[in-house]
Amino acid sequence: MARRKRTVNFGVIGLGMGRGHLEGYVKAPNSKVVGIADLNEIRLKDCKDRYSVSKTFTDYHDLLALKNLDAVSVAVPNYLHNPITLDALKAGKHVLVEKPMALNAEEGQEMLDTANKHGLKLMLQFNNRYRGDIQFLKRCVDAGDFGEIYFAKTGWVRRRGVPGAGTWFTDKKRSGGGPLIDLGVHVIDMTMYMMGSPKPVTVSGCTVQKFPQLVKSGTFDVEDFASAYVRFENGATMIAEISWAMNCPAERIYSEIYGTKAGASVSPLAIWTEEHGALADIEPKHVKGLSQFEHFADCILKDKTPISPGEHGVLMMKVLDAIYESSETGREVVIDWD
Amino acid sequence: MARRKRTVNFGVIGLGMGRGHLEGYVKAPNSKVVGIADLNEIRLKDCKDRYSVSKTFTDYHDLLALKNLDAVSVAVPNYLHNPITLDALKAGKHVLVEKPMALNAEEGQEMLDTANKHGLKLMLQFNNRYRGDIQFLKRCVDAGDFGEIYFAKTGWVRRRGVPGAGTWFTDKKRSGGGPLIDLGVHVIDMTMYMMGSPKPVTVSGCTVQKFPQLVKSGTFDVEDFASAYVRFENGATMIAEISWAMNCPAERIYSEIYGTKAGASVSPLAIWTEEHGALADIEPKHVKGLSQFEHFADCILKDKTPISPGEHGVLMMKVLDAIYESSETGREVVIDWD
Amino acid sequence: MARRKRTVNFGVIGLGMGRGHLEGYVKAPNSKVVGIADLNEIRLKDCKDRYSVSKTFTDYHDLLALKNLDAVSVAVPNYLHNPITLDALKAGKHVLVEKPMALNAEEGQEMLDTANKHGLKLMLQFNNRYRGDIQFLKRCVDAGDFGEIYFAKTGWVRRRGVPGAGTWFTDKKRSGGGPLIDLGVHVIDMTMYMMGSPKPVTVSGCTVQKFPQLVKSGTFDVEDFASAYVRFENGATMIAEISWAMNCPAERIYSEIYGTKAGASVSPLAIWTEEHGALADIEPKHVKGLSQFEHFADCILKDKTPISPGEHGVLMMKVLDAIYESSETGREVVIDWD
Amino acid sequence: MARRKRTVNFGVIGLGMGRGHLEGYVKAPNSKVVGIADLNEIRLKDCKDRYSVSKTFTDYHDLLALKNLDAVSVAVPNYLHNPITLDALKAGKHVLVEKPMALNAEEGQEMLDTANKHGLKLMLQFNNRYRGDIQFLKRCVDAGDFGEIYFAKTGWVRRRGVPGAGTWFTDKKRSGGGPLIDLGVHVIDMTMYMMGSPKPVTVSGCTVQKFPQLVKSGTFDVEDFASAYVRFENGATMIAEISWAMNCPAERIYSEIYGTKAGASVSPLAIWTEEHGALADIEPKHVKGLSQFEHFADCILKDKTPISPGEHGVLMMKVLDAIYESSETGREVVIDWD
Amino acid sequence: MARRKRTVNFGVIGLGMGRGHLEGYVKAPNSKVVGIADLNEIRLKDCKDRYSVSKTFTDYHDLLALKNLDAVSVAVPNYLHNPITLDALKAGKHVLVEKPMALNAEEGQEMLDTANKHGLKLMLQFNNRYRGDIQFLKRCVDAGDFGEIYFAKTGWVRRRGVPGAGTWFTDKKRSGGGPLIDLGVHVIDMTMYMMGSPKPVTVSGCTVQKFPQLVKSGTFDVEDFASAYVRFENGATMIAEISWAMNCPAERIYSEIYGTKAGASVSPLAIWTEEHGALADIEPKHVKGLSQFEHFADCILKDKTPISPGEHGVLMMKVLDAIYESSETGREVVIDWD
Amino acid sequence: MARRKRTVNFGVIGLGMGRGHLEGYVKAPNSKVVGIADLNEIRLKDCKDRYSVSKTFTDYHDLLALKNLDAVSVAVPNYLHNPITLDALKAGKHVLVEKPMALNAEEGQEMLDTANKHGLKLMLQFNNRYRGDIQFLKRCVDAGDFGEIYFAKTGWVRRRGVPGAGTWFTDKKRSGGGPLIDLGVHVIDMTMYMMGSPKPVTVSGCTVQKFPQLVKSGTFDVEDFASAYVRFENGATMIAEISWAMNCPAERIYSEIYGTKAGASVSPLAIWTEEHGALADIEPKHVKGLSQFEHFADCILKDKTPISPGEHGVLMMKVLDAIYESSETGREVVIDWD
Repeated sequence: MARRKRTVNFGVIGLGMGRGHLEGYVKAPNSKVVGIADLNEIRLKDCKDRYSVSKTFTDYHDLLALKNLDAVSVAVPNYLHNPITLDALKAGKHVLVEKPMALNAEEGQEMLDTANKHGLKLMLQFNNRYRGDIQFLKRCVDAGDFGEIYFAKTGWVRRRGVPGAGTWFTDKKRSGGGPLIDLGVHVIDMTMYMMGSPKPVTVSGCTVQKFPQLVKSGTFDVEDFASAYVRFENGATMIAEISWAMNCPAERIYSEIYGTKAGASVSPLAIWTEEHGALADIEPKHVKGLSQFEHFADCILKDKTPISPGEHGVLMMKVLDAIYESSETGREVVIDWD
Repeated sequence: MARRKRTVNFGVIGLGMGRGHLEGYVKAPNSKVVGIADLNEIRLKDCKDRYSVSKTFTDYHDLLALKNLDAVSVAVPNYLHNPITLDALKAGKHVLVEKPMALNAEEGQEMLDTANKHGLKLMLQFNNRYRGDIQFLKRCVDAGDFGEIYFAKTGWVRRRGVPGAGTWFTDKKRSGGGPLIDLGVHVIDMTMYMMGSPKPVTVSGCTVQKFPQLVKSGTFDVEDFASAYVRFENGATMIAEISWAMNCPAERIYSEIYGTKAGASVSPLAIWTEEHGALADIEPKHVKGLSQFEHFADCILKDKTPISPGEHGVLMMKVLDAIYESSETGREVVIDWD
Repeated sequence: MARRKRTVNFGVIGLGMGRGHLEGYVKAPNSKVVGIADLNEIRLKDCKDRYSVSKTFTDYHDLLALKNLDAVSVAVPNYLHNPITLDALKAGKHVLVEKPMALNAEEGQEMLDTANKHGLKLMLQFNNRYRGDIQFLKRCVDAGDFGEIYFAKTGWVRRRGVPGAGTWFTDKKRSGGGPLIDLGVHVIDMTMYMMGSPKPVTVSGCTVQKFPQLVKSGTFDVEDFASAYVRFENGATMIAEISWAMNCPAERIYSEIYGTKAGASVSPLAIWTEEHGALADIEPKHVKGLSQFEHFADCILKDKTPISPGEHGVLMMKVLDAIYESSETGREVVIDWD
Repeated sequence: MARRKRTVNFGVIGLGMGRGHLEGYVKAPNSKVVGIADLNEIRLKDCKDRYSVSKTFTDYHDLLALKNLDAVSVAVPNYLHNPITLDALKAGKHVLVEKPMALNAEEGQEMLDTANKHGLKLMLQFNNRYRGDIQFLKRCVDAGDFGEIYFAKTGWVRRRGVPGAGTWFTDKKRSGGGPLIDLGVHVIDMTMYMMGSPKPVTVSGCTVQKFPQLVKSGTFDVEDFASAYVRFENGATMIAEISWAMNCPAERIYSEIYGTKAGASVSPLAIWTEEHGALADIEPKHVKGLSQFEHFADCILKDKTPISPGEHGVLMMKVLDAIYESSETGREVVIDWD
Repeated sequence: MARRKRTVNFGVIGLGMGRGHLEGYVKAPNSKVVGIADLNEIRLKDCKDRYSVSKTFTDYHDLLALKNLDAVSVAVPNYLHNPITLDALKAGKHVLVEKPMALNAEEGQEMLDTANKHGLKLMLQFNNRYRGDIQFLKRCVDAGDFGEIYFAKTGWVRRRGVPGAGTWFTDKKRSGGGPLIDLGVHVIDMTMYMMGSPKPVTVSGCTVQKFPQLVKSGTFDVEDFASAYVRFENGATMIAEISWAMNCPAERIYSEIYGTKAGASVSPLAIWTEEHGALADIEPKHVKGLSQFEHFADCILKDKTPISPGEHGVLMMKVLDAIYESSETGREVVIDWD
Repeated sequence: MARRKRTVNFGVIGLGMGRGHLEGYVKAPNSKVVGIADLNEIRLKDCKDRYSVSKTFTDYHDLLALKNLDAVSVAVPNYLHNPITLDALKAGKHVLVEKPMALNAEEGQEMLDTANKHGLKLMLQFNNRYRGDIQFLKRCVDAGDFGEIYFAKTGWVRRRGVPGAGTWFTDKKRSGGGPLIDLGVHVIDMTMYMMGSPKPVTVSGCTVQKFPQLVKSGTFDVEDFASAYVRFENGATMIAEISWAMNCPAERIYSEIYGTKAGASVSPLAIWTEEHGALADIEPKHVKGLSQFEHFADCILKDKTPISPGEHGVLMMKVLDAIYESSETGREVVIDWD
């Protein structure tokens, strides 16, 4: 019985982005890595040595065939999230999938349905949710310190920060999109998470490409800037701006939430509120984050819902899909929740 | 012939907000104040003495009846902009009207049509357009330094700054709205002005009231916060946030425009661009503003179009109307330009 | 009946320091100044004109003889606090006396006993207690936000700040002491007030004079520096340093309290605590103070105990007396509470 | 004859804290390490390899039995300072003992008497005395730049810094006390050293434990906070505050001395004085410290009194003993100097 | 006998720049103003009223004819310094003349010779010499704190600060030169004063005009920038840069002297030296300046040499003359001291 | 034919300063290191291993004898620049020589003549010219952004920074001079480079030694401070200050150029100019430098003139020679350009 187990046996597919997963599982007291898969043999060898992993595979199907494997991390380019996750789930493995969940909401829903059908955990690698500052603010929100949250602002803007030429990031077929899906997924998710994951009902957005000269080789058919406006079921609104390149002063990542009792900013972490009839600014310090890898293992062992469940991955894809659609049509998109 | 005149004879209606107008005309070399009107006799007396105005009136109709009067400033509560301006225009006087132009676009359009019909100037008191920093950035924009401007962000947020209890500001019938129409009109106008006054095509917005406790007497039936998202005909987008009260760190007024060649911020004034292949931040200094009162007189004397023409007042009212409508319906509003 | 009265009739004795009292009463809605007394006729005339006071006296006994006088402020050099206050109380007037209450605790006790005997209010002019920051922290303390307060640090140190030559400040017979009684009384009082006015049980102190050259004329027989250590009945301790002249970087006034749940500093106002398991620094803003003059009138009208009652004046004098005694004997003084 | 020797042969007992001693002797040109002792064999092996020490011992008696050994460093938990130092002295070795000298003054005096009886050096590891800033200020003091020093303030306060659970630090039997003996010994010593090591005559103090929850396992029967007030024979006074845990803004270590001609702060190093009739702040730079290990060897070779002699260790223990006693009795302690 | 007098009777010629002189004499306890002269009658009337001066003249010869007049301030455009000073001296009056002393050294020497011939004081209005910081540094220099001063740097550079169009400042015939003679005279004088007024032996310099567009009306035939290099008899060198207009960051006025024992900067006031073997930066504070007007009266009453004697005015003119000459010839000028 | 080659074969003579050359060639794609020479065998061995150099020599003549060697770096003490460079050129090798080019201009001219005679490249290691900030400003200058540059200021001053005792730096025979030739060569060169390498026509200078005590062993017969003033053929002037030791606040390296349209500073990089009628400060960012080693190889392969040609090395030596000569004679030196 899973409940009695003390340790989850993990595999990691994709060692470029997945090296962090590997390290995370190795450090977690309730995890063990039993195999890793990557197309690059040098990388495989290097990780095997550094982290003392016994089995390595160039074909991930072989990894999935391992009997003692409980779960896998899927840390590959975006367009492979769907097929590999489906394969893993069908092989009976729990899955931690990198963000964005898939190329679009439809793919994401398919993955979620498959996980549910097989009674397996599907967790999203929304790493920011596990940061100390975000967890701290979530505790404040859950304690009611903010009252009703009715507005949020978020952004991740870079002055000149398009991912290196020739990579899959700038190729829409493989990435699904540009900075919106690469960076926006992080900050929009952390913001909506702190807001309590309200249901988006309308989305207006715009995605444009204005710096074609920055990608000198390879395909560049995605946006380099996006703006968006989201209205939620509870009446709250959120604005967002995202860029790989923009004539702004410097890279800036921010997320702010505003409630009837308090407002807050992440980076720098600050709360603006009232205390005993005076305005008060609170600066929390030494907040501690969680290991999402230990948390995933814990969810598997104790059959708990992850902090970043597959449902939220689908929710995010719906928002991103709607922004792209709104940009194409030049009109607001009403999200279909049937 | 108007062209030959060297000086315009002005009247000022409303001396609360209008004291600045009075001072402005007194200082301008091409203006003269021939009469002032206000319901408050003490105020009338005080201004008469301080600025050596010969004629004072408690009924503005009497002021408008002055033969030698060329033009008036209408500086009264919002709901009176329309009727007084119409009266003045019908009396053959040019009008400088305080912002917002009226309670809504329909009223504004009526004013504009009347002015046009009589061949009179109708200028909006969008004072920020005349500031040194805005004029400087407009020169840069017009010189092409920014390339194509495709995104803008603006806001005027106050932590606790609701206008005093019992005033007309918080009474929708008299004000037309809350911070959106009081503060938002300033920052949205200056932003759109720098963008080149593109035509808005869709507007999403939200206006809410979350701090009812801050107005202890009188009517409070307007919003204390607004957010908005505007899409322009040229593909550009703009986001805005406005508040009288909000759990934010401190009052902040900002406007940022982003173009393909450069971006810029007002307050502090800064330009972010490239020079000879390197990123470069430019800090302009000692920029000089214009007197809008001298400018208005100049437009009358030389039959020029003002920097802030009545057309832009109507444009602004259309945007504000659309934000309120979008907030009520929970859906984006498509602006009708027929 | 006093209760029915809406306004208290005040007199002010001494217009050097007392000008602030005069202004305070004039501004307070529940106070009226019916007479002022001072030896300096020019000052009397000036205040009469500026504050529209009808009656002026060069002999304070004549002021006290006014029938419609309810209360007086005694704002004269320290050695006159006792005799004038006694005269006023015996004349049936409530008294607000400047700090320090008297030259020593014995004198203070006599004043307090007299007030109690006549059923009159005796309030101390501990102005700092009425500041917004102190009142705010007191609210926090009373709400239990600090837990048990077990340590405090306070000081008022000046690098070169001996009151001008030839004044009574440096003459022990008239002042009772140097910076300890001049400045220390302020910061020690505000600190003990925030601590909840615990009972001091032992006091060690040292007062020395090291800068005789700074007073070039007149008597200089008081200390220019004092240090002290106080142990309270509840186990808390307090350290203090006070100077008119000292080789320190600059004038500094501070008061810090440390409790089991939080600590705090006045100037700059800050609270150091924990929130939801993280350390948190709180910066309160826009705290609002009270008018002690309006408060005094209110206490008289409603028969309430003042925020700074005569009892606390005696308490403070006991502490100061003990510091001087400890300095003379070179040993700790145990305060007698029988 | 010792005088002719060029190099002293050292042993180090205890390699946890003693690793710094080992490094210091290895670097000093007049020292050689001939043996090291520790109960932990892994640590022994590691140090042997890293510093090329030929002989290692798990029983320090064996080290003391080495013929060519001249002196030892005793760097073990506090309760072992006395017995091991006595053993070493009886074996004819000079001793450099970690601070605090012992669990109390009585033990310290025994050690000092033994050293004197055998004509051996007993030096205290008061490392701060050898810092560049302290040595610089001591030179200023000795040159008379400060005039008469009549007041000092010192403190080492931590917000949350209790040494790790389960260690000997929180167990009074083994440590002798909490932050007072752990941290206070450093700052009180450096302050008294700069003051010229005046004789304390009375001591008031308070030690309390207010954060029991911070030590989750093991014994915690020592204070987490201490305050103290010391009066010296020359009339000077000193105040001190020490904590492992306290609701203060951040860790802070400070020592300030105030004299009739100048005052000074350590960290940041600053002097406040007068120059040619003006106030002047002096910021010394690039001050250079001494190696206490080279100094110890030098004292042995040249029969000089160390900068931190055993006498000062006993002096410090008397002060610490008196603070603990004063806290227990709630009364000042008069130090017995007969 | 002059010695017995307690007060000097002054006249002021020129009330534009001379208003400061007038105020200075009025405030000084040893001075009295008996008459003022100016061509502008309104100014005369205004000063008469404000400073209670009994006699006013539009022709300065009439002022000089006053019997009870002891001395005058000559505060007129540069080209009038020589003739008016000569008139005053010949009338037997001591003279305080504004800087620069004259249009050139020859004129200055004539004034000095005349003063000496008549046994009268001729003092230069080098106001900076009397500032607290300069006097403080001079005391340090005189006390030997700097050792031998062998290098100095000074400058007064403005980004856009040409005196207003149409004034005499930009007309060489009336001013003698541009920023060099207007601003440079101040900073070069204060620097040489602190250096101990060493004798210049060679001067290289360059004066150019690069911003002709900044003076829109009137004559502009002087430089807007000057650089210079001076070699003194004692081997010291000095570099200087002076501008009314220059593409520099902001206006900056500085003077730095470098000696073998210490260096110093004025604005901000700082000394860089060594103390007890460490580098040390000293920041003097609260330095106090002198009244040059009281000083001038004192020199007259007690027959003392002024801090800024006529000789130094000639010295300065020789340096300025040499810079202009060097610029014209493109070669170093050797100053003739015969 | 050289043109067809893709790679230049380099040798490095002198591995103390030359290690940077070695690294530079190893990294450059168009360079290969075929041999290195140094007197120190340990250093030779170390470099051979670290950079995989096949051939090492203790006698540089043997290196020069290598058939496949195209060019060498000469990175030895100053007095050896001339003889080794001559040897290398005579052996038919291109030479990159460390700055200063030689002990004086005569030696430098001989080297340049020899290079020209043999048709070889002689490049100076003026590394600052290749920095990103300098290259950026040079592009601005070349684009005319500064207009006419008519003034420059530069300096490299150290408070206490004399190169270590016993080295060749302080021995004039081997170094040619002190900080002027060691540090001044850098900053004067970068400044003149940005000015467009105008021809100096007159030079005034002063070199002194005021800190003899800082060199405790070895010869110290060079200056520790130098100041200079240079006049160029185009009318521009430059001032410079250079020190190894000076009582200044801290080490500072600066170079500023002033033109009719803009001015600029290196470190921090800033431009001061006008934009659209307003003053504007520009802060360039992320400027990128060049590899001088790759550049040298490129110049050889494509027969281009280096950015830092031998001619500029001679120019610099003429300036330095003139400063030393001016200091000796106490008079300006007119540079002979025949």
